[in-house]
Parts: sequence; C-alpha cells; structure tokens
Amino acid sequence: MKNRTITVFAPATVANVACGFDSLGFALNEPGDVIKLTRRDEPGIRITRITGDNGRLPLETDKNTAGVSVKALLEHTGEPCGFDIEVHKQMPLGSGLGSSSASTVGAVFGANLLLDKPLTREQLLPFALLGEKVACGAAHADNVAPSLLGGFQLIRSYDPLDVIEVPHPEGLHCTVLHPHIEVMTEDSRKILRQSVRLKDAIVQWSNFAGLVTGLITGNYPLISRSLNDIIFEPVRSLLIPGYDNVKIAAMDAGALGCSISGSGPSIFALSTSMAGARNVGDAMLASLKKTGIEGDVYVSPINKTGPRIVEEG
Amino acid sequence: MKNRTITVFAPATVANVACGFDSLGFALNEPGDVIKLTRRDEPGIRITRITGDNGRLPLETDKNTAGVSVKALLEHTGEPCGFDIEVHKQMPLGSGLGSSSASTVGAVFGANLLLDKPLTREQLLPFALLGEKVACGAAHADNVAPSLLGGFQLIRSYDPLDVIEVPHPEGLHCTVLHPHIEVMTEDSRKILRQSVRLKDAIVQWSNFAGLVTGLITGNYPLISRSLNDIIFEPVRSLLIPGYDNVKIAAMDAGALGCSISGSGPSIFALSTSMAGARNVGDAMLASLKKTGIEGDVYVSPINKTGPRIVEEG
Repeated sequence: MKNRTITVFAPATVANVACGFDSLGFALNEPGDVIKLTRRDEPGIRITRITGDNGRLPLETDKNTAGVSVKALLEHTGEPCGFDIEVHKQMPLGSGLGSSSASTVGAVFGANLLLDKPLTREQLLPFALLGEKVACGAAHADNVAPSLLGGFQLIRSYDPLDVIEVPHPEGLHCTVLHPHIEVMTEDSRKILRQSVRLKDAIVQWSNFAGLVTGLITGNYPLISRSLNDIIFEPVRSLLIPGYDNVKIAAMDAGALGCSISGSGPSIFALSTSMAGARNVGDAMLASLKKTGIEGDVYVSPINKTGPRIVEEG
Repeated sequence: MKNRTITVFAPATVANVACGFDSLGFALNEPGDVIKLTRRDEPGIRITRITGDNGRLPLETDKNTAGVSVKALLEHTGEPCGFDIEVHKQMPLGSGLGSSSASTVGAVFGANLLLDKPLTREQLLPFALLGEKVACGAAHADNVAPSLLGGFQLIRSYDPLDVIEVPHPEGLHCTVLHPHIEVMTEDSRKILRQSVRLKDAIVQWSNFAGLVTGLITGNYPLISRSLNDIIFEPVRSLLIPGYDNVKIAAMDAGALGCSISGSGPSIFALSTSMAGARNVGDAMLASLKKTGIEGDVYVSPINKTGPRIVEEG
C-alpha cells in the first residue's frame, strides 16, 4: 500500500457551560487545530512537527496527546502500519477552549480515515480520551466528546462512559473571548473546594436541568435564565482580570448568558444570531481592553459535525 | 348571589424523582385528596370538616393548608365572600406523596372556580405554596406545582419562582408503594448533611440532565440509566425497612428505575406501560411483605391535567 496523507480540522470546544460543570460541552466552528497525518507501511507513530505551540508540546509519541491516542487506536485495529503526525495548533494552549482535545480528536479522526474507517466516531471516543488523559492528567470528556461528535454533548457518566447528544436550537451562536493571559487547568482545579453546600448544589442542578430543557425545546428565555453558575464562577473568575465587567458588557449587548469556558481564562457568551454574537464579542473585547489586556474574539454557530477533512491525497 | 358548591380532586405527586432533589416532581392519577368548597355571601374561611386524617389536621383556618391558601387568594381578589371547606384526605399523611400539597391545590383550584376563575392555574401557584409553607415549614414547589399543573414540573428557581414543564413520553407509568410506616418530612430532612462532595454533586447533576433529556426526547433507556440518586437515597433509605429489596424487586420486574418518593417512606418506580407498572407493583408489595410490613400500591399514568372537578352545583 502506498503512503496516503490527510489533513483534518478539529474544533475547539466550550466545556462546563456555566451550570454544567464537568458534564456538558459544545463545539465551535472556530478556532480549532489542524492535524496532518501520513500513513506509512512501516509500523510506529512519529510526531514529525508541531507548530503554533511555541515549542511547549512534546514530540515524544508517548507524551503527546495525538501520539498516545493514535497509538492506542492502531493497536486496537491491529493494522501493521505506522503514522507520521503533524500538529498545527491554531488556538492558544491553556485557553479553556479544549486545545489538547482538538489535537487528539483530529489525530484519531484522521488516522481512522486512513485506516478506511474501521470505527465510528462514537467508537473513537475512548481512544481520544486516552490522549486527553496524558495531557491533563484526567480525561475531560466534556471537551473531547463535542470536538469529536459536534453539537452539545452531555457526559451523563464517566464510568461507564455514557455520552448523550443534547439537541439545540438552530439560531444559537457562541462568542468566545480569549484574554491574553494563561490559566493552567491544574491551577483552576486547585482553587475549587472539594465539597459544596447542599443548597448551592440544588440551585446548580436546577439551573442545569433548566438549561438542558431550554436547549432541547428551543426556549431561549429559559436558556438565558438557566445559564448561571453559582459554585465555580465566583471562585474561578478571580483568576481572570476584568471578568465581571466583561460579563456585564456581554449581557448589556444582548447575550443570553455568559460564563467561563472550561477552566478559563476564555469567556463564552451565547446569542440567538450571528449578528448578535458579533455585537456581544465587540462589547466583551472593548471591556477587556479597559483592563489593559488584549484578546481574541471568535464568533461561530454551534458546530454540528465535529472534525472535518481539509485536504486529502 | 346564592351559595354555590364545588367538589374537586387534586392529585398526589412524586417529588425529588431520584436525582432531581428539591427540583423535579410529577403528578399521579391516584391517589389524591377531595376538597368540597361552598361559597358563602358572608366573609370568612371555615374548615367545616376533615375526614381521613384520624383527627390530626387542624380545623383552625390559619393553621390549615387549605384555609391559609384560600384566605390569601380571597384577599388577593378582594371578593367580599367567604368559603366553607371540607377536606377529605384520600391518601395517607406523611407518606411522601405530597399529601398537604394536594389539599392546598384542591382548595385554591376549587375556590378560584367559585370566584369565576380570576386567576390562571399558573397564577394560583404562589397561593398554594403559602399553604404548603404552613404545613411543612417550607414551600416545596416540587409537590405543589405538579399537583396544580400536572405532568413533570421543574422548579428551576424558588426566588424568583420559575416553574417549567418538562415534556414526557406518553407511555410512562408510575407505580407507588406506600409502606404502612410513617416518616415525618422533618426527620427525613434532619438526616441529610448540609454539604455534599463535589464529585458526588457532579454525578448527581449529570444524571439529572440525563433524566430531563430522556424525558423530553422519549428515550426510555436514558431515563433508566439516569434514574439514580447517589446522595440522598443511601441515607434516607435507612428509614425505610426493606427498601433495598423492594428496589431490587422493582428492577427485576422490569422497572426503568426506582427511588424514594418525596422524603419517603413511599417508593416509586417508573415503567413504560400500565401492565408493566402493575407487575412492578406486585413485585414491590411482595418484597415489602417479606419484612412483615403491609402497604398500598397505586399504579397510574403520569397525570397531565392536575386537579379536576368531581361535582358541581
């Protein structure tokens, strides 16, 4: 068999989604990572090139998210071939946008295609999670699942893994503001307490049930009222300078809701149209700049398909 | 205006619904309470008769759930009339089936009809909650709302009150087993800890989001997988002799799930048909009897309408 090459794009994701901590995530049309894979006849996985990471990501296969997950996939299929993998980061690391998930999802998605699709997307999930575990020390399926499957994905259970698509209204759009500061997922975890007050948990899960109901039934006012996080946002937002004002700016500009993306520092807002989401982005960025911090704004509908082929051959 | 009389039925309810503690409830077709109201020209609310309570409920208007809520409704409307109210309890007190809610819902529903419906059902909710507050010391909207409105009702927020109907599949049926023991709501609250582990809260709200998604999309396997309560059931079930075996019997008989109704001691199970729910009830009762305790079984589809008129004139 001749070498074959494929280039794929895998989307960034917003995890946690206010009241849906560790449980709900959704995919964006941009940003995302681009992964180029070349299938070789000889066995072995090599990470041949990484761009856009300022030299921070490991080239060793067993330490690289993409390398680990493709290696596991290859072992599973038993195919006697190998892969060269290029990882082109097109979004910031440690941004709260599921950067490592996008790389690992792109890698397993592309490798599966070059293996002539022995597995469905759903079946690829455990392999992508392996890569995420290497990168973060824990498998955060609320980033990996939406990056791989698109849409809103609910992680009902980790053990056994049970991932459910939550339908969402067509008009829903997302604005993401990435402030040019870095918050490591680990620090953002450390700041959280290991127990929560029962009364706060009740408020949180009532909002979560409201959010899911609003998404499925296309009830925007309900989505808006439910997009609250009374447990994590008050603590984690302390690590994001100007957060409160950015959120006020988003809401004043007409956002349905606004909260921290993943473990931050990116901030997401939901709107009912592309134009609305753009307005919200302008307002959020203007507010951030007042604190002397620059940022990038991404505006996109909810990504419905997950990764896609950029180039084949 | 001449006196007018109306007799109404208001349904029992299952609150908490496993992972939906303090947040989700649904209504049953039976059991329920029957309330007879007579409108008088002279002002004042009198509780003229209570049956089925073994003399335990207060006849004083200001201490009786029905009296308090109808009085508040009458004051709100400003109508210069009065009511005589008979409360016929047709379900056990302290059973975890929303007994006080049914009485108060029946009373405000009937009074509103005799006042020529100045308020919608939704508008009656705050008045019914007032009565519930008198009976329980706290307003448990997850019993009152489904009894008044029917179906599954999500209490997204108590302040401000925000009640959302969660659609459910047609085939869903409920079995309730009421063991002949009594657990006071207050005791059942006392046994709960005031904080929960974060990791448990995440499991709980992920199941809750799964349950709501399953209900709205009619996904029975998802409803089944989501009907878990890892926080409250392990503690509260200690107050219900034979609980674990009754639950196993329900599941073995094909129930989608089984958990404690409200604060107990009643146990509910969900099934996909009336015949299935009856089988489940037989199995639950047989299991309970092995512990030497008798019980009543109620089997019903989900009540969709809330209270109804039994007799007019």
